[in-house]
Amino acid sequence: MTIAAVDHFLQQAAPRFEGELLDLLRIPSVSAESRYAGDVRRAAEFVRTQLAALGFAAELVETPGHPIVYAESPAVPGAPTVLVYGHYDVQPADPLDLWKTPPFDPSIRDGMVYARGATDDKGQMFTHIKSAEAWVRAAGRVPVNLKYVIEGEEEVGSNHLELFLAEWKSRLAADVAVISDTSQFGPGRPAVTHGLRGIIACEVTVHGPRQDLHSGIFGGSIANPANGLARLIASLHDDAGLIQIPGFYNGIPPLTAAERQRLRDLGFDEGAYLAEIAVSAPHGESGYTTLERRWVRPTCDVNGLTSGYQGEGPKTIIPSWARAKITCRLVPGQDPEHLVRSLEAYLRRGLLPGLRLEFQSWHGCPGYVFDTDNHFMQAACRAITTAFEVPPVFIREGGTIPVVESFRRILGLDTLLLGWGQNTDNLHGPNEHFTLQDFHRGIRASAHLWHELSRLPV
Amino acid sequence: MTIAAVDHFLQQAAPRFEGELLDLLRIPSVSAESRYAGDVRRAAEFVRTQLAALGFAAELVETPGHPIVYAESPAVPGAPTVLVYGHYDVQPADPLDLWKTPPFDPSIRDGMVYARGATDDKGQMFTHIKSAEAWVRAAGRVPVNLKYVIEGEEEVGSNHLELFLAEWKSRLAADVAVISDTSQFGPGRPAVTHGLRGIIACEVTVHGPRQDLHSGIFGGSIANPANGLARLIASLHDDAGLIQIPGFYNGIPPLTAAERQRLRDLGFDEGAYLAEIAVSAPHGESGYTTLERRWVRPTCDVNGLTSGYQGEGPKTIIPSWARAKITCRLVPGQDPEHLVRSLEAYLRRGLLPGLRLEFQSWHGCPGYVFDTDNHFMQAACRAITTAFEVPPVFIREGGTIPVVESFRRILGLDTLLLGWGQNTDNLHGPNEHFTLQDFHRGIRASAHLWHELSRLPV
Repeated sequence: MTIAAVDHFLQQAAPRFEGELLDLLRIPSVSAESRYAGDVRRAAEFVRTQLAALGFAAELVETPGHPIVYAESPAVPGAPTVLVYGHYDVQPADPLDLWKTPPFDPSIRDGMVYARGATDDKGQMFTHIKSAEAWVRAAGRVPVNLKYVIEGEEEVGSNHLELFLAEWKSRLAADVAVISDTSQFGPGRPAVTHGLRGIIACEVTVHGPRQDLHSGIFGGSIANPANGLARLIASLHDDAGLIQIPGFYNGIPPLTAAERQRLRDLGFDEGAYLAEIAVSAPHGESGYTTLERRWVRPTCDVNGLTSGYQGEGPKTIIPSWARAKITCRLVPGQDPEHLVRSLEAYLRRGLLPGLRLEFQSWHGCPGYVFDTDNHFMQAACRAITTAFEVPPVFIREGGTIPVVESFRRILGLDTLLLGWGQNTDNLHGPNEHFTLQDFHRGIRASAHLWHELSRLPV
Repeated sequence: MTIAAVDHFLQQAAPRFEGELLDLLRIPSVSAESRYAGDVRRAAEFVRTQLAALGFAAELVETPGHPIVYAESPAVPGAPTVLVYGHYDVQPADPLDLWKTPPFDPSIRDGMVYARGATDDKGQMFTHIKSAEAWVRAAGRVPVNLKYVIEGEEEVGSNHLELFLAEWKSRLAADVAVISDTSQFGPGRPAVTHGLRGIIACEVTVHGPRQDLHSGIFGGSIANPANGLARLIASLHDDAGLIQIPGFYNGIPPLTAAERQRLRDLGFDEGAYLAEIAVSAPHGESGYTTLERRWVRPTCDVNGLTSGYQGEGPKTIIPSWARAKITCRLVPGQDPEHLVRSLEAYLRRGLLPGLRLEFQSWHGCPGYVFDTDNHFMQAACRAITTAFEVPPVFIREGGTIPVVESFRRILGLDTLLLGWGQNTDNLHGPNEHFTLQDFHRGIRASAHLWHELSRLPV
């Protein structure tokens, strides 16, 4: 059987794959810092070369920033087409003194490879290249059509990706996307992430008097912008933690009993969660559990406050203005553009006399959910079950992965979010690492995913 | 006549007096910030030298904080004794970018001197030194007994003044106190201030998670310290502008019809007041006029807010903590110590689950009122009428001069509050200034006050 040959190849090639991963991790492709621009390009070239060596049409697509690696496997008529997304750029590595070994001199300890990008996302992205190599070497070709989009600006906001997706839209046509840039639910608990929260982000500035005023001379006679801002923020929630922006919950489908049960079955340890962040009690929308509040319910959080005197000791002024940064995490069904307008209008209505509101918002993103019964999803579950020897759990993620929304909106694609790493792998922090066992299980799950997908009816 | 010689001296010495004022204003004696400690001492030494040059016994009295300048004029048996109080420290100057010229590089434009402390209180305090100099140079001596207490911690709560007053009580014995740290009622409308508001001041820090958290991964499941702080601040007022701290209005005598009439008779121009500070509408406690809200009713104002991310653009975090500085202005009848405790308890009760409140308060002060028929008051009115060529009006002041309450409580003294500045001089704000004409009229009124007081029966 072909898949048996692929599995055999993976076993014998494992040491070489590890060596090649270390070669990729040695390249300090920090996209945020311009001094690394040459290294970022070197990493792109490394990825392109890897794909070209499989006989794939592979090129660097230039952008005003760092290049995108694009590659296509030879056409397999009648087989599904899969868009594989990943990124070869990494977060800055500082503070360097907290690393036990240098971030760009990878070292293996206790079965884990330590390096910046080990998990996020070089290690995880690489699994989808090595799985293709196994098919090419063991079977002569990959059984599906693979299109790779491996970008170099994910850690700095993917600023040039959307334009690329729009311009290359017809060439990127596919049946489903695959991304490995999330986590398992825990060690030995592989997961398929089927939901993400969206976001709206704004900055609210309440203006009062022309300048800071003496709080004795003027106090009591005019609205204070800081008090007025606090009043607006407080009005965002009621005592039960429900968000008061008009229409905020419109369009959100009720949480089904089955979904609630599935979340309960995950056995989330709330005590450990709170202890980790040193918070004595949970708080949120009444009627929901902590996991529900994190994954399937929307939020409204202040991210920063600025007003008046912030130095040592007291200062008796009425500040001229007060500012808050506010983000809402959204769930599927909520419309970011509508809610930004509703939020602005709601805040304007709550403004005290004599105050003026300045409202700025940034690009929003809706929430995302992918039907777990979908046959691509089920194919992914079978592949993971084979590789990890345990079925995956379905989880959601409270954060936002904008590319997933871009794929749906621009390319009409749903995405299989298959995380091989752990959320304890210190992504973005010092001593980032990736378990080699998870690296190899990820490659094998990916190889089996191509197999499972090739057997689906198109 | 001696007073004519004094007036003549004042005229010829005016340019030199201005130059000396600028020298004093150049010293950045910001008492709140420890990096200015050396400059604060330099300002004290400047004041001491000025008084010593008149043949007064002048010294720096050390405190655990900034020194107090103390000086006595040579004894004039049978004449009244006047305690002159002022302060040589100033408010912080930030935000610096709003100053047209640097706060500690005084510049004269359109007959006004611009500098931090120009009015509050270096410029006004200095008039009582220059008036004494006029008497010494023109008449050989001051006709009353002057005792100067010029402190360096007024802007940070006068923390060490009370102990000094208590320890030096017998040496500070006097008949009346004089302070110029208030304002005229308007340009060319000199005033004697017979009432002051008191104050309580605190800093409230709401603590949440150990560190800033990702708002996607954690958002919705724990109380956000910035939202929680806003909720506490919003709970300080109801929709009618009434302060909700339990017992807040206890002990305040009702405003009499006569007092309301006197306030109406001042012909306060609310439109001009609001236009000056660029505020479109008044706001405050319902049932009171703007002047009543400023002078005879208490307040609760936020002076500053700090939390989380304050830079450009969005940042998706739940901040670890949020802080507000809060002051309440009090009127006679309110007890500061009781109200600080009531405020703290009220805030603690309103805290969301999982948050922790840190509460710090500074020394408070009750409100103050002085009988307008008193003969020292009437002497001050005559001196002002001569210097300003118009009789003063009796006003109250929304600000706090804690030392006035200390003088009454510790030394048994009432205080003549004679303001030479304007409340549009940007005290505590950027571009603080003092009209040179008011500086000189203040000096002359002070010189005539010594004259009028010397003629009173002791």
